[in-house]
Amino acid sequence: MSDLLIRNCRVLQTSAHEPRAAVLNGQDVIVRGSRIEAVQPTGQADPSHFGQVIEAGGLLAMPGLINTHAHVPMVIFRGLAEDVSIEKWFNDYMWPLESNLQPDDVYWGMQLGLAEMIRGGVTSVADHYFYMDRAAEAVEAAGTRALLGWAIFGSGGQQAVEQSAAFVRQYQGAAGGRIRTWMAPHAPYTCDDDFLRASVRQAEALGVGIHIHVSETMGQTEASLGKRGLTPIQVLEQTGVLDVPTLLAHVVGAMPGDMAILARRTTGIAHAPKTYLKLAMGTAPVRAFIGHGIPVGLATDGAVSSNTLDIWESLRLLALTQKQEAGSPEAMTIPQVLFVATRLSARVFGLPDDLGAVEPGYLADIILVDLNGLHHQPLHSLTASLVYNTAAGDVRTVICDGKIIMRDRQLLTLDEGEIVAQVNAGMARLSQRVPNKRIQVYNP
Amino acid sequence: MSDLLIRNCRVLQTSAHEPRAAVLNGQDVIVRGSRIEAVQPTGQADPSHFGQVIEAGGLLAMPGLINTHAHVPMVIFRGLAEDVSIEKWFNDYMWPLESNLQPDDVYWGMQLGLAEMIRGGVTSVADHYFYMDRAAEAVEAAGTRALLGWAIFGSGGQQAVEQSAAFVRQYQGAAGGRIRTWMAPHAPYTCDDDFLRASVRQAEALGVGIHIHVSETMGQTEASLGKRGLTPIQVLEQTGVLDVPTLLAHVVGAMPGDMAILARRTTGIAHAPKTYLKLAMGTAPVRAFIGHGIPVGLATDGAVSSNTLDIWESLRLLALTQKQEAGSPEAMTIPQVLFVATRLSARVFGLPDDLGAVEPGYLADIILVDLNGLHHQPLHSLTASLVYNTAAGDVRTVICDGKIIMRDRQLLTLDEGEIVAQVNAGMARLSQRVPNKRIQVYNP
Repeated sequence: MSDLLIRNCRVLQTSAHEPRAAVLNGQDVIVRGSRIEAVQPTGQADPSHFGQVIEAGGLLAMPGLINTHAHVPMVIFRGLAEDVSIEKWFNDYMWPLESNLQPDDVYWGMQLGLAEMIRGGVTSVADHYFYMDRAAEAVEAAGTRALLGWAIFGSGGQQAVEQSAAFVRQYQGAAGGRIRTWMAPHAPYTCDDDFLRASVRQAEALGVGIHIHVSETMGQTEASLGKRGLTPIQVLEQTGVLDVPTLLAHVVGAMPGDMAILARRTTGIAHAPKTYLKLAMGTAPVRAFIGHGIPVGLATDGAVSSNTLDIWESLRLLALTQKQEAGSPEAMTIPQVLFVATRLSARVFGLPDDLGAVEPGYLADIILVDLNGLHHQPLHSLTASLVYNTAAGDVRTVICDGKIIMRDRQLLTLDEGEIVAQVNAGMARLSQRVPNKRIQVYNP
Repeated sequence: MSDLLIRNCRVLQTSAHEPRAAVLNGQDVIVRGSRIEAVQPTGQADPSHFGQVIEAGGLLAMPGLINTHAHVPMVIFRGLAEDVSIEKWFNDYMWPLESNLQPDDVYWGMQLGLAEMIRGGVTSVADHYFYMDRAAEAVEAAGTRALLGWAIFGSGGQQAVEQSAAFVRQYQGAAGGRIRTWMAPHAPYTCDDDFLRASVRQAEALGVGIHIHVSETMGQTEASLGKRGLTPIQVLEQTGVLDVPTLLAHVVGAMPGDMAILARRTTGIAHAPKTYLKLAMGTAPVRAFIGHGIPVGLATDGAVSSNTLDIWESLRLLALTQKQEAGSPEAMTIPQVLFVATRLSARVFGLPDDLGAVEPGYLADIILVDLNGLHHQPLHSLTASLVYNTAAGDVRTVICDGKIIMRDRQLLTLDEGEIVAQVNAGMARLSQRVPNKRIQVYNP
């Protein structure tokens, strides 16, 4: 039997339409196959009728977290580019380091990052990187869900577009449907208009969307305005990128006119506040996006800027930085933050009717969070504790697609010892920076 | 025998004079009584000569963290004042809630907060609250170190000053010297000049310092300038508060002229960035303070604003918010952050020659941090991981004053179950807000 009973948990209840958050106590969650069949008061379901039973004893069941923008395999470089400007970060560190990258590095780096994320309750990731066939293998093994894009630069020419498209074709629906694939041109500042248009043609032909970086800082927006009189968002509009579903990473440097453009399209914005603080990129206008009906999802970005792949940190920093930016502690309330973390992240990820809720009919991507730690006590407000107190280590059990992939903090799908050994074996080679050897130049 | 050998650890090495951070591998730390006797390569010391041995197996030994400003017992109210303005936070929530406070609440709240802090590697706290005789009892039981002040408001008159002074006298040097006591008038906006002067006279007579809130926001500074033409720091100068050693909480709203005043005095500033973000208070000019030679220490403030008592969060947010404020990722480097977390926090706490270093002669307040978690791998940079990746749950063992108070995440001094039961029993009573019943009014 593939049936699963999660017994006697609390359930986080949210609305699909507006920021509301409540908690139901004493509930059973019934999972059949990959979906949630029912959420009902404990006592009605007979545990002996289920293939697997988790005695949740007051743990909180909530939707698996969604990381809407990352470069997961970059964990292998974590800690190698600290306290440097964005220009140096790209030109003197990241892009030289990535010239060391081999397909096996992506495979083990992806496993490491997925394992870190599972331990923190992340069941889905939208990933944008290289050698994504190897990343897909790792997702298959981990048992998680992913939206994968093979990152390409304009310098790669038509061949790169074909490569990204071939990956889309080959891995669409892989891992029993847990993997979806999109086109992934890097950014308007590394891809010229013809390259973007070619990417759009492929996306349209394949019936998929585009995952791309855009307006990462106001500096990039100003550079684009200076060079060609268009914001990066306007470049995406003119090249047709916004005619397909898009996942836009960052958009920190949005101009007021960009809002109306984005509001008319099927687009979502990935928000990675730890990276923005660390690289002093500015604060994204999240409240304005949401006010215009543009969904915003939580993200970490890669671990060379964010150091961790911890969505709880993103969630907390979303609240804190938006209050700061608004100059008001009344801004970005707890229900709003949880709305972003659940429903809006599911929309940005492209599965609004399948993810982001513990409700009948939704995919059974569920995490059980332990709020008994001293740092939560006394629990006057469970939802406040979710936003301001919860650590990755509070996640006890993780279910994805109806299967238990971490139980009582034991990973069931991946071999932590093997992953760490494999990654450590590559450290010396990966940390070398060869003068003048880099995969790109940053000059937006 | 009270001797302790910590065997085969890494040791964080810092300088007392400038931001430098390095790591020594394969070290033994020898503790005799309450102090560190030696730090030497593993292999020279014979474990059979020691009363206690900790096999550290590559864990990192670093100084116990210092929380330079908190209201620890406020954990009992955590989660009760969310998403509200500072005015409402004080007038409609915090000060009405505190009218419910009884001495036993302080005792159990202090135990809960100390237990949370020990689990996160905090061995010292500068605490500013009520019924501090009961807080001192909790510190005695916990085995930690504290600088305690009985908080008083001007409305309490001379009797309040006497009470704060009596507490100083009675508990100075308590718990075998682990407790020090200072005077603790609340703030210039709740204490008039005569009250501040009376507090100074007591501090001078008792040979102690003053722990006080000041210039918490630029709004407070502007209000003070508007009412009397003086910044809150100038008020402290004129009333003689700065003539004794002072621990100043926050100073977010510092004016340029305040820097020179503070630089001439024996003063330290407690920095609690999570609270500043959450209450949209602005960003403290930390780099300017340090540039003027004014020491800055890490702090959490109370858990009703910061939700947790997690100094790792403060450390991380210090780095992130100062980079943001500077508009440069090159600002507030990893060595600078660790300098604040160790040496400067010890100066702010008033024990610069005793705390903040794992070196011979220093007090044996040592924590062992486990950097083997997946969120640290691969460990290209241990110091980067300390600042950006380390969670409270990574602290494995805590030693204070030469005694092990947590071992392999088991608290040895406090009874977690009893604490949680006691605190939970008071939740309904403590969360009531009686109309018009409050201990003070906020109107700076």
